[in-house]
Amino acid sequence: MRLEERLGDLLRQRGGTISVAESCTGGLLASWITDVPGSSAYFRGGIVAYQNDVKERLLGVSTEILKRFGAVSEESARAMAHGCRKLFSSDVAVAITGIAGPGGGSPNKPVGLVYIAVSALDKVACERFFWSGNRALNKESSVRAALNMVVRTLKAAEAGWQPEGM
Amino acid sequence: MRLEERLGDLLRQRGGTISVAESCTGGLLASWITDVPGSSAYFRGGIVAYQNDVKERLLGVSTEILKRFGAVSEESARAMAHGCRKLFSSDVAVAITGIAGPGGGSPNKPVGLVYIAVSALDKVACERFFWSGNRALNKESSVRAALNMVVRTLKAAEAGWQPEGM
Repeated sequence: MRLEERLGDLLRQRGGTISVAESCTGGLLASWITDVPGSSAYFRGGIVAYQNDVKERLLGVSTEILKRFGAVSEESARAMAHGCRKLFSSDVAVAITGIAGPGGGSPNKPVGLVYIAVSALDKVACERFFWSGNRALNKESSVRAALNMVVRTLKAAEAGWQPEGM
Repeated sequence: MRLEERLGDLLRQRGGTISVAESCTGGLLASWITDVPGSSAYFRGGIVAYQNDVKERLLGVSTEILKRFGAVSEESARAMAHGCRKLFSSDVAVAITGIAGPGGGSPNKPVGLVYIAVSALDKVACERFFWSGNRALNKESSVRAALNMVVRTLKAAEAGWQPEGM
């Protein structure tokens, strides 16, 4: 079973909803999620936030975070996930920010660096990844990692927590 | 040259920007546009508006339009494109709304019915399509048609109009 189908099953079982905020994946995560027939039952929507002002205005990422840590940072990813969940009133939100390449890299933040954050319940989890593919592969790897993180989060919730609204 | 590369070239030549609002394509249009390296120079961002309340709140589609004509209608497509362009302050905006299938169809609005609207300058153009593929193919056909419409719009602008801000 594909990851996005598994995600759909887990959300449907609990009546949960999801939304996404994407920077470097540019809509690919939302597209994979909505490849599943019937995903409108649990997919609330997505923001492709390619520019900083969009991250600020729509997702509520603070100017301070963007200035101090940059758009590609754990802090930004967390804030994007938090803001996305609020904007769409979803039970879970996932945010991806990174550098898909081939341009945009720097010694401190090389091409392939990606932060993914998942907001669910009262937590935001964040992980850092380094991909070494081309632009298309880095996008795909990021989407797969994001789906994996959400599936893990939902399964953890299933095993132990008793979340409200999920 | 792929359509999304051609789109990028046309936008770069004029310093124009684009944003997208997607319903049935679920982020695929944004993903194709951002497959092009350097697209951050002209791609402002996107909204995946899978639910009516998202179309209302973020894109400003009126409750009246949604009630009277439905989310899959020329009126909604036009309003989505208009609202998207405003939200992202872009020179051009394109909106897609339709029924990708396999569910969600009705005698009046069968699976495969898609409306695509392009807002540029002082106009919003809208076209209706009927696709007969499966969900994935209907998404791809819609994205291709949308890119085609924008490329045509930009080329028409190049040939005749002298748009401000483009």
